[in-house]
Amino acid sequence: MSTLPADNFTVELQPLDTHRAEKAKWLLNSPEPPSLWHQITISIRQTVLPLGNTGGTAVCFLQGIFPILKWGRNYKAAQFKNDFMAGLTLASLCIPQSIGYATLAKLEPQYGLYTSVVPPLIYALMGSSREIAIGPVAVVSLLLSAMIQKIVDPFVDPTNYTRLVFTVTFFAGTFQALFGLFRLGFLVDFLSHAAIVGFMGGAAIVIGLQQLKGLLGINYFTTNTDIVSVLDAVVKSLHNPWNPLNFVLGCSFLIFILITRFIGRRNRKLFWLPAMAPLFSVILSTLIVYLTKADKHGIKIVKHFKGGLNPSSVHQLQFGSPHVGEAAKIGLICAIIALTEAIAVGRSFASLKGYQLDGNKEMVAIGFMNIVGSLTSCYTATGSFSRTAVNFSAGCETVVSNMVMAITVLISLVFLTRLLYYTPIAILASIILSALPGLIDLNEAYNIWKLDKLDFLVCIGAFFGVLFGSVEIGLLIAIVISFAKIILHSIRPSTEVQGKLPATDIFCDITQFPMATKISGILIIRVNSGTLCFANANFIKERILKSVIDENEENTRERVGVLVLDMSNVMNIDTSGIIALEELHKKLISQGIELAVANPRWTVINKLKLAKFVDKIGAERVFLTVEDVVDAFLRLKMTGLGSC
Amino acid sequence: MSTLPADNFTVELQPLDTHRAEKAKWLLNSPEPPSLWHQITISIRQTVLPLGNTGGTAVCFLQGIFPILKWGRNYKAAQFKNDFMAGLTLASLCIPQSIGYATLAKLEPQYGLYTSVVPPLIYALMGSSREIAIGPVAVVSLLLSAMIQKIVDPFVDPTNYTRLVFTVTFFAGTFQALFGLFRLGFLVDFLSHAAIVGFMGGAAIVIGLQQLKGLLGINYFTTNTDIVSVLDAVVKSLHNPWNPLNFVLGCSFLIFILITRFIGRRNRKLFWLPAMAPLFSVILSTLIVYLTKADKHGIKIVKHFKGGLNPSSVHQLQFGSPHVGEAAKIGLICAIIALTEAIAVGRSFASLKGYQLDGNKEMVAIGFMNIVGSLTSCYTATGSFSRTAVNFSAGCETVVSNMVMAITVLISLVFLTRLLYYTPIAILASIILSALPGLIDLNEAYNIWKLDKLDFLVCIGAFFGVLFGSVEIGLLIAIVISFAKIILHSIRPSTEVQGKLPATDIFCDITQFPMATKISGILIIRVNSGTLCFANANFIKERILKSVIDENEENTRERVGVLVLDMSNVMNIDTSGIIALEELHKKLISQGIELAVANPRWTVINKLKLAKFVDKIGAERVFLTVEDVVDAFLRLKMTGLGSC
Repeated sequence: MSTLPADNFTVELQPLDTHRAEKAKWLLNSPEPPSLWHQITISIRQTVLPLGNTGGTAVCFLQGIFPILKWGRNYKAAQFKNDFMAGLTLASLCIPQSIGYATLAKLEPQYGLYTSVVPPLIYALMGSSREIAIGPVAVVSLLLSAMIQKIVDPFVDPTNYTRLVFTVTFFAGTFQALFGLFRLGFLVDFLSHAAIVGFMGGAAIVIGLQQLKGLLGINYFTTNTDIVSVLDAVVKSLHNPWNPLNFVLGCSFLIFILITRFIGRRNRKLFWLPAMAPLFSVILSTLIVYLTKADKHGIKIVKHFKGGLNPSSVHQLQFGSPHVGEAAKIGLICAIIALTEAIAVGRSFASLKGYQLDGNKEMVAIGFMNIVGSLTSCYTATGSFSRTAVNFSAGCETVVSNMVMAITVLISLVFLTRLLYYTPIAILASIILSALPGLIDLNEAYNIWKLDKLDFLVCIGAFFGVLFGSVEIGLLIAIVISFAKIILHSIRPSTEVQGKLPATDIFCDITQFPMATKISGILIIRVNSGTLCFANANFIKERILKSVIDENEENTRERVGVLVLDMSNVMNIDTSGIIALEELHKKLISQGIELAVANPRWTVINKLKLAKFVDKIGAERVFLTVEDVVDAFLRLKMTGLGSC
Repeated sequence: MSTLPADNFTVELQPLDTHRAEKAKWLLNSPEPPSLWHQITISIRQTVLPLGNTGGTAVCFLQGIFPILKWGRNYKAAQFKNDFMAGLTLASLCIPQSIGYATLAKLEPQYGLYTSVVPPLIYALMGSSREIAIGPVAVVSLLLSAMIQKIVDPFVDPTNYTRLVFTVTFFAGTFQALFGLFRLGFLVDFLSHAAIVGFMGGAAIVIGLQQLKGLLGINYFTTNTDIVSVLDAVVKSLHNPWNPLNFVLGCSFLIFILITRFIGRRNRKLFWLPAMAPLFSVILSTLIVYLTKADKHGIKIVKHFKGGLNPSSVHQLQFGSPHVGEAAKIGLICAIIALTEAIAVGRSFASLKGYQLDGNKEMVAIGFMNIVGSLTSCYTATGSFSRTAVNFSAGCETVVSNMVMAITVLISLVFLTRLLYYTPIAILASIILSALPGLIDLNEAYNIWKLDKLDFLVCIGAFFGVLFGSVEIGLLIAIVISFAKIILHSIRPSTEVQGKLPATDIFCDITQFPMATKISGILIIRVNSGTLCFANANFIKERILKSVIDENEENTRERVGVLVLDMSNVMNIDTSGIIALEELHKKLISQGIELAVANPRWTVINKLKLAKFVDKIGAERVFLTVEDVVDAFLRLKMTGLGSC
């Protein structure tokens, strides 16, 4: 039985508490919320325009674009000494890694070195991070070769393959610069933390598998990157005669590098040992091969190696080619992956030193360095995590260490490349392999599992997608699951029954706060969804009606007389949502239950007024807080019972 | 300058207010929230299992499936009289409409009549709506012909076309029944109200354009449904000699039908006039053509018309055909559109009479009627809005009126079909045209525009998609925009600065409530998003930091000392969200600002504890309400200033 007739409620409510009525009036008479157009323009302005940087002289403007003009004037000799040492350490790690990553990208080795010359110099002029080490990185190299070799085979037509790589790099740089200029940095956010952890882990294993070719000295290998094809290719080639010398050489130097790293970790002062080990391995193994003429006995060597300055590649960009659309697509994916890595690296070291990076400015700097790179025979460069850590440990002070590194690489390109002719490929493979463990973060994967099972699904989705499918499939799986998660939360929101916390006026979820008590005759339900829309309105309506049935079954002493809908969480409502509320109201009325609405938010109350829903339920049934509704109803009940 | 050192805050907070601390403890010690698996099983159970209907005898079970067993026992002669009259009225409207819709579906006219026999009879046994009029409808007929004629041309190979229609109908019925059995009714919700309004409007215009063929007596017409192709075809055929007699005949009867409808609307008692007008038009025009032999002078007539009982079509279903996949796809789309219409019709009339329909049971009924229909030469049937309105006005009491209608149609199939040989096609076109205005709801489109501009975008997206593209494109556009809207709200949530309402302890958005006042030194920010995740975490972080800058610029007297993050709206957080909070905390600390968290919800506080974020900011900085934080800070400030 409903405790009170509806008319009574309406009539007696007004005089009860003028303050409560006043609060409700504040709510009902709140000003018009900003219109959609207003919101859109504000949002675009906030997105596109820089935050604080308004106006200023031409000097300020130039300093904004080229931060070096600002800090360069205070640059001191003591800083240069540190930067010089860090730059040399960096170069010794960078030269072998660059050659290795170039082979991973299926390019001739000198392109790796070229990429360690021009982009770091451009970044030094435009970038704001002080520690980041710019150059080729493993994941982007893999990404490029995995996607481009589907269009042009690097072994059949290496010239066109290389030209396409430059074109992709140009597009990647252009996208990166545009993202920065239009402040679209949020696009990088669409790869969630969990997706990156999974993707990097999968990519590391795929890269490692690719190195089996070099390490085992296999001639014929698959162009697919998935684990099944690669293992299949390895098993097949092991049936043919193969030369174990490559494997022995590669493994011994891999063990050497890993031991130096272990020592470097134990004793922080010996950080230069693991940084120097790769270069030392290259020199030593090259000497061994040269002196023993091992290349005649089956050891595979680099052979092709063109030295000299970066040649221009302006005329190699293929904008007229039929593959230009695909190149742009690959460029976009590379741009996002490269930015994700660079910004993650830059931010983590900036926060270690306690300064802040402007993501959008960084994107412009990285974009320009890749555009210029694509015109000077470089492929896509970004910030390398392992080398940035070395740079940081080596005590770099500013981005000058990148300049020192670039110049050192340039010098070695001019003078030392002839020596690299005899470098065994197995050594390059072992250098790449030694850099991979840093990409696999099992610890973080475990943390993600602990915190959020669906996030973990994103993580392993990306991981297995990369491993058994391809890099694009891995990324696609991660993005689809991530957005499906958002939609799932929206279409299946929860509702909670609220009770009053003891000795307070606070109403809370009775399952979360077992000490909260329900109020007899009043059912308070909070809709836990940011939007009440077509996708969840019917579901929420059914859930609420179900709660009424449950409550009546549970508390047989007094039936539900008032349903309080706490709308605090609902930021937006659409026409389907309003229709569902109207249906809910009708159905409650037919069961003799009053509907009261508590704390509808700005847009919601505005739309409910426009749709005449407020008129339908009566303006006196809209309250600012749940407390007010309960208070009003309890007083009414008392006076109602008193008059009985 | 920060007003108080951080240590001070930590030490002095505890003894301030034991009650406040106790409330925070309730929050921090709230029990483990239900795990993901638990939530999933609960959600599946709630979705799949019926709500109240648990157990019962075999009779109850049968009554659940065949509601006729329940109400049939109390069925009275007086009710039958009403149902009989309503059924006859319905049949008189249904016969001409069915023939017309069959031609719209590019089937021979008898199939429309067959569809008005078997499905209504099955529905009468299984359905719970009392008013719905079952049979072929315009939109589904259009949908079928538009999609199936892309696979098989109905003029070149009518036999295979018809067989494919039955196969599609079988799939549509199966999907509908499965949706109902697995309680997947929410799938129908994915077409939002706005999308349906736009889609129906577009479909009505497309159907109208298709009728130009019949009305103008054109021989060669396009198979495309978009407005450009149709108008192009019409203009081209008008260049050829054409016979205006068809047009004159069709238009005169169209005007007659529209006049009767106008009269029927003015005088509710004459509702039977518009209902009878189509049948009267068919009879009169057929007689005219028969007597004047007008078919020899260019009037196009129906000609093919096979009478008799519904033949079996069991052996016509093509499960082995290569098109079976496409048939299933078309079946799925038809199933959803047909269900949307049937449930909308059923619900609106049920709420007029004050009873409730179980959407899932209705789906099973409609699904079975279409499965049986597909075996007895029927194409996809559903509830027709226009005929249901006629049925309601004619005073139907139960679904028996559908039975009367079906039997009447059956009798006319057996005895009267020879007479329909001479029916002019232009009349069928004018009958379809006369039913279209009911599908275009300009008023509702205007309401949607007023309420929600983005919803209106969905509406016109569907409208123009159907008009200029095809029915599938229209649906796709509507669904994509609808879900993009949900994602957009999630990735660009708002944050609000809160102030205290005068003479209360309530904290509200200061833009919505201009009377609310900010508290000096404390910045209270509420995150208006249901989830703090990868897609919005960085955005929210930047917004909050921007608010701090703004606040410090605005209030130069006292800098922000404490930032209160009101998390009441945030129902869920992922690893990216937690990382963003950690970054926010670090950045605030570096600016000498305290971070306090108010009212983190169940899952959120649990994850913040797991991720050790609570330990990082200190458990004493987590509060149940904003009021508590402000209270704690103000007291601290007073004692702090006192000791200075």
